[in-house]
Amino acid sequence: MSELRYHPFLGTWVITATHRQERTFHPPDDFCPLCPTRPFGFPTEIPEPDYDIAVFENRFPSLTTPSAEPAIEGLPLCPVLSSQGVCEVICYTSDHRATFADLSLSQVRKLTRVWRERFIDLSVRPGIEYVFVFENKGREIGVTLSHPHGQIYAFPFVPPVPARMLDQERRHFEATGRAMTDDWLNQELVSGSRVVVAGETFAAVVPFFARYPFEVHIVGRMGRRSLGEMEPSELDDLAEMLLDTVRRYDRLFGFSMPYIMAMFQSPVAGDHPYTRFRVEFYPPFRTADKLKYLAGVESAMGTFINDTLPEDSAKRLREA
Amino acid sequence: MSELRYHPFLGTWVITATHRQERTFHPPDDFCPLCPTRPFGFPTEIPEPDYDIAVFENRFPSLTTPSAEPAIEGLPLCPVLSSQGVCEVICYTSDHRATFADLSLSQVRKLTRVWRERFIDLSVRPGIEYVFVFENKGREIGVTLSHPHGQIYAFPFVPPVPARMLDQERRHFEATGRAMTDDWLNQELVSGSRVVVAGETFAAVVPFFARYPFEVHIVGRMGRRSLGEMEPSELDDLAEMLLDTVRRYDRLFGFSMPYIMAMFQSPVAGDHPYTRFRVEFYPPFRTADKLKYLAGVESAMGTFINDTLPEDSAKRLREA
Repeated sequence: MSELRYHPFLGTWVITATHRQERTFHPPDDFCPLCPTRPFGFPTEIPEPDYDIAVFENRFPSLTTPSAEPAIEGLPLCPVLSSQGVCEVICYTSDHRATFADLSLSQVRKLTRVWRERFIDLSVRPGIEYVFVFENKGREIGVTLSHPHGQIYAFPFVPPVPARMLDQERRHFEATGRAMTDDWLNQELVSGSRVVVAGETFAAVVPFFARYPFEVHIVGRMGRRSLGEMEPSELDDLAEMLLDTVRRYDRLFGFSMPYIMAMFQSPVAGDHPYTRFRVEFYPPFRTADKLKYLAGVESAMGTFINDTLPEDSAKRLREA
Repeated sequence: MSELRYHPFLGTWVITATHRQERTFHPPDDFCPLCPTRPFGFPTEIPEPDYDIAVFENRFPSLTTPSAEPAIEGLPLCPVLSSQGVCEVICYTSDHRATFADLSLSQVRKLTRVWRERFIDLSVRPGIEYVFVFENKGREIGVTLSHPHGQIYAFPFVPPVPARMLDQERRHFEATGRAMTDDWLNQELVSGSRVVVAGETFAAVVPFFARYPFEVHIVGRMGRRSLGEMEPSELDDLAEMLLDTVRRYDRLFGFSMPYIMAMFQSPVAGDHPYTRFRVEFYPPFRTADKLKYLAGVESAMGTFINDTLPEDSAKRLREA
């Protein structure tokens, strides 16, 4: 039902997962599969009357372990692999109506511990090469369940975007002996015009090279490559910076802002002293009522057109 | 108002073009800027009472020549360039209500000559490295003007996706002495299960490695690297295959199918014997009423999840 097919022109794997067509699609609130199972109620994914934070395997996974042998043979140019890996769902709270921005700081701090624990646990599983923690939020992003939740994909390969970044970071390290993220953050802090918040351990910045209108990167000052390396106090500070960012987004246009939140971390295998943990946010709005679409130039060419000025976006987020 | 900013982590240029925020957004039909200028009517982009096919520079361009000096200084890690290049609009017909699929075969044949002429003309302009002919169709793709039209971007660099493909194609050529596209097409034709139409000069195929649910590639059998190399009879056959494809899309779900149509061609400079002209279609629907979104896994990781089986999609398009 699911397999990896090789795209020889891009040199990447595509996940073919046809059973996902049947996944739950905007159910009524009473039938939310991410809510607790109420007494005498509809049986949800969580067979408990209540929960704090819940983690479980996605019922419609793109990647699974064990995974079935591929049902199709490849072409000579296009090998096929079984789609081994793990897809997990993390419910942030049992409160169906909440969003990340509504969580208490102590709840987000707990959540950082859950992410860290899942990162470490998935990292040591055989065949896993990259652990991706993320949240898709809002209908505009394509989310089919509104209950506040994030996801984790444990990939059997390093996906093309982090692979590309690691390559760029490695080259910079070989040339300078320093991590590109550290250098870039210092340059942003000196310039100042795109900094949203500069905390002691983390900073939130609209990068000079933002591809999305209100793109924000949360970058650490401690040189950590993954959640696995962070001290409790750093996780606490990360929680605060994440919460501050999503709350600014909500104040920006006066509605609950959809976004993609993506955590970039070191691959599981090998030593990568040149890379750094980073959280990137991609909200889809370019104004309060206009969406940024990824059309031909972005989708086919890979070149982004940003209709906003990163310096203006940072100012608006600072003031929000 | 527009500049190229370097993304050091991806090694790519981002176009920052803030004046595009003001571009015309879903105007009423009577105020369509791509219609002919009716006597005593609103002055459109085309100051003529009628036209057959019209080409002009985009009034809200991402790339322009001459282009102003960048208004901002870069960071050490993030240089800035002026956004030199050309953005053109091609109106397929003066009929506001038509779509590509409604055009006559003779009109599409004319259109292939216009594309070819624009490709050749833009290719020899100083500073241009890649000419991208494409169409964004439909509100779901983010199109803000419904009048049937395509676009051309003449880039001052080879964009990251074709750059990546050229690299893969070059490696295959060095290893085998053959073009990857020729080998891949032969493998698809032998297999047969993903071929939508096999013509004498072009074939339409849902590729084994399709990333989008009803992705179709139109590939030539004559080894051409660009429109500039094609004979009139080949342009005629291309027109027929394009028209056949978009009409199948419309019949697939019984409505006018939105899509991104993207032409991949040889870069302007240098000799690239290993590459081939190709047209790729990315429709955004995975079923008649469900869209495929590019969420966290696609946008942040670059890994695509296809919820459909390419073999099924090809069968449905063959039968459509």
